[in-house]
Amino acid sequence: MSNKLSTQPYKGTRDFYPEEQRLREWLFAQLRRSVSQYGYEPYDGPMLEPFELYAAKTGEEIVNEQLYSFSDRGDRKVAMRPEMTPTLARMVAARANQLAKPIRWFSIPNLWRYERPQRGRLREHWQLNVDLLGVEGVEAEAEVVQVAIDLLRNLGAGPTDFEVQINHRQLMNDLFDKVLKLSPDQTQNVAKAIDKRAKIPVESFHELLTAAGCSQAQIDTLEKFLASPLLEIPAICGESEGFKALCRFFDIVNALGLGPVCRFNSSIMRGFDYYTGIVFEIYDQHPDNRRALFGGGRYDNLVGMFGGAQIPGVGFGMGDVTLRDFLDVHGLLPELAADTEVLVGLFSPEMLVPSQQMARHLRAAGLKVEAVLQPQKLAKQFQYADKKGIPLVVMVGPDEAAAGLASIKDLRSGQQVSISQSELLARLQVMLG
Amino acid sequence: MSNKLSTQPYKGTRDFYPEEQRLREWLFAQLRRSVSQYGYEPYDGPMLEPFELYAAKTGEEIVNEQLYSFSDRGDRKVAMRPEMTPTLARMVAARANQLAKPIRWFSIPNLWRYERPQRGRLREHWQLNVDLLGVEGVEAEAEVVQVAIDLLRNLGAGPTDFEVQINHRQLMNDLFDKVLKLSPDQTQNVAKAIDKRAKIPVESFHELLTAAGCSQAQIDTLEKFLASPLLEIPAICGESEGFKALCRFFDIVNALGLGPVCRFNSSIMRGFDYYTGIVFEIYDQHPDNRRALFGGGRYDNLVGMFGGAQIPGVGFGMGDVTLRDFLDVHGLLPELAADTEVLVGLFSPEMLVPSQQMARHLRAAGLKVEAVLQPQKLAKQFQYADKKGIPLVVMVGPDEAAAGLASIKDLRSGQQVSISQSELLARLQVMLG
Repeated sequence: MSNKLSTQPYKGTRDFYPEEQRLREWLFAQLRRSVSQYGYEPYDGPMLEPFELYAAKTGEEIVNEQLYSFSDRGDRKVAMRPEMTPTLARMVAARANQLAKPIRWFSIPNLWRYERPQRGRLREHWQLNVDLLGVEGVEAEAEVVQVAIDLLRNLGAGPTDFEVQINHRQLMNDLFDKVLKLSPDQTQNVAKAIDKRAKIPVESFHELLTAAGCSQAQIDTLEKFLASPLLEIPAICGESEGFKALCRFFDIVNALGLGPVCRFNSSIMRGFDYYTGIVFEIYDQHPDNRRALFGGGRYDNLVGMFGGAQIPGVGFGMGDVTLRDFLDVHGLLPELAADTEVLVGLFSPEMLVPSQQMARHLRAAGLKVEAVLQPQKLAKQFQYADKKGIPLVVMVGPDEAAAGLASIKDLRSGQQVSISQSELLARLQVMLG
Repeated sequence: MSNKLSTQPYKGTRDFYPEEQRLREWLFAQLRRSVSQYGYEPYDGPMLEPFELYAAKTGEEIVNEQLYSFSDRGDRKVAMRPEMTPTLARMVAARANQLAKPIRWFSIPNLWRYERPQRGRLREHWQLNVDLLGVEGVEAEAEVVQVAIDLLRNLGAGPTDFEVQINHRQLMNDLFDKVLKLSPDQTQNVAKAIDKRAKIPVESFHELLTAAGCSQAQIDTLEKFLASPLLEIPAICGESEGFKALCRFFDIVNALGLGPVCRFNSSIMRGFDYYTGIVFEIYDQHPDNRRALFGGGRYDNLVGMFGGAQIPGVGFGMGDVTLRDFLDVHGLLPELAADTEVLVGLFSPEMLVPSQQMARHLRAAGLKVEAVLQPQKLAKQFQYADKKGIPLVVMVGPDEAAAGLASIKDLRSGQQVSISQSELLARLQVMLG
């Protein structure tokens, strides 16, 4: 108590004051509405998980540099979840036999990663996770991509605001193994180079490839591959399974009218160990925010790390920070005022009980009613309601109370009416629309 | 990947499968609805806070034995929040001058405490926090107690299911200082003994008092005090400010018809350092669960630990685990099925695109529609819908598609109808009611 504490939140995290929290709740409600239109059901797990859950599968960068991990008082090594998929896999594995399949689940957990805070990156963030498990065909990828598109559209995004860029991991494997004939080490480094390609000059990209031991001929072939539209891919890679899956995928999304927002892009890699089939990333098309917003794909080996049967899965994770940047840059963030409907003012200290009774009566009918508790000048009470965006103020003075009356002031129009208390509720409901 | 991972969640935490998560979301929605009827606004803060925030104020037991704390990779000492009030105080202090007062805020954060898991106690739980800041009079306590009562009633609790037991810290201080004339050390120990009184035999209570250095005369006075109804308290303590505040409080709640669920109980202590005025606890009255569910009170010194002005506050915290036990024992937990309305079945692989188009059409109109993606026997598709509680299955075969028809099976009645696709949506909406 002696020295003053800082009022700042922990670095890289956010305080959600009511205006921010309303926006967050609005956003999450929109996301829930979108995914439940596809029959996805909500789940959640604990924010702390055994350390081994991440050590087993997640990329090394996350475990070694970004994971919040520590030993608890019972000397168990634990970690604050940096992503939701391992928890999902653990929960599905625990009830693999009882759960009706396919499994359509979503969650909006808070996740943690220790990194330098910057635009779009914080230490605590929330992430919508959408996963469809138990379907082998690309119909699953087509559904999950539809969910991603619809939720952006439901948030107000127009047809040219974003683009879904799509690739297939097997197509890349065939390129690396059969065409370029890379060693496993080379494959890792070439994949990483492709992942960086959109953000670096072409010379730097070629330097990375040369450093990975690629010959000029290999670089030429790779460049030709990366520049080819989907239909010219077989001329380079032959009839890859990945090619066939991509064709089927595009047949479906084209037939559903989603072709114009979907595009084949063979530079899309996403985490190398994780995905096994189609991968996709949603790109913001706004000139001020040209970046990948979120992405996902097919992962067929995840549930199996707990033993028992493999269950194929397709999913994506969408972070709230990048999503808010997207909505912000496109002017899609709403202004949300508090939704309190009535302020029951306090005429004088003696009127507290009648005012409180009136407030209880209105609340019992479902209205959202704040009540003034301490004597204040009436002008201040009106001012307060105005500042809070509360449209109606109800007040009852001693004379009114004796005559069974109350007054309503509509702060939107400035008009004031006196009305019988028995008609008050009905009149307020009309005025609130 | 080599050795199998455990599918168990971390000790003392819960996995929320969809049926559990639906219940949690239902519960939180009820709580939000109740508190927003009083004009309370949502807020949230980060789950990690600087360690000092708790070291400064929270009771020693929590900091030394129950706090999850560790050093981050930048060597900052941090803690997983064990309670929300310090975060609330920090946030209010940071904007003390800008915020319109009174401040009515609520939050439902996840909180952490390291302890042995048992009935009603877990390591991760959620807690509704309701706080009213900036009002000095007991009108504030009367409002916050009303909120607590109404939210239990809105959850279905009847008039005899729970009781609000009320005391005042100044009344106890007057008893300890002026009547019993205890030293500060004795006061601590006597307060702790009173806190335990309801759970131990009377002999053990007296042993604790004797160990605290109380004479038999002091014990007799204390027992007389604890047995006295409110109106007889002045005969023991004189006209304590605490007595006056309690009288005013009961005048208000009686006038509002809440007297029957509120009772003065001078054994209610709650944390000794924290509260400064009225304190209260909600007791479950069910014979199988006679225990304190949650409580709160007035704390007037909290925001000031950040420097700047004091802001008086009244609030309570209600944990989800004890609340669920309460609802469970009173039979108030609802059965919540998934809310998907229509399953669009798949007649044959060739019908995927027409079926998907139909599903998109129905979703665009606002229906919650799951679609079958892989060929399965029709009986299995009906079975799946039945297991998931989806009432209607829509199917379109090749002949139907050619004739512009679709069939609807209502799994509730077993009836099947064939209908023009142009009338499908309207018919489904009628069938869903």
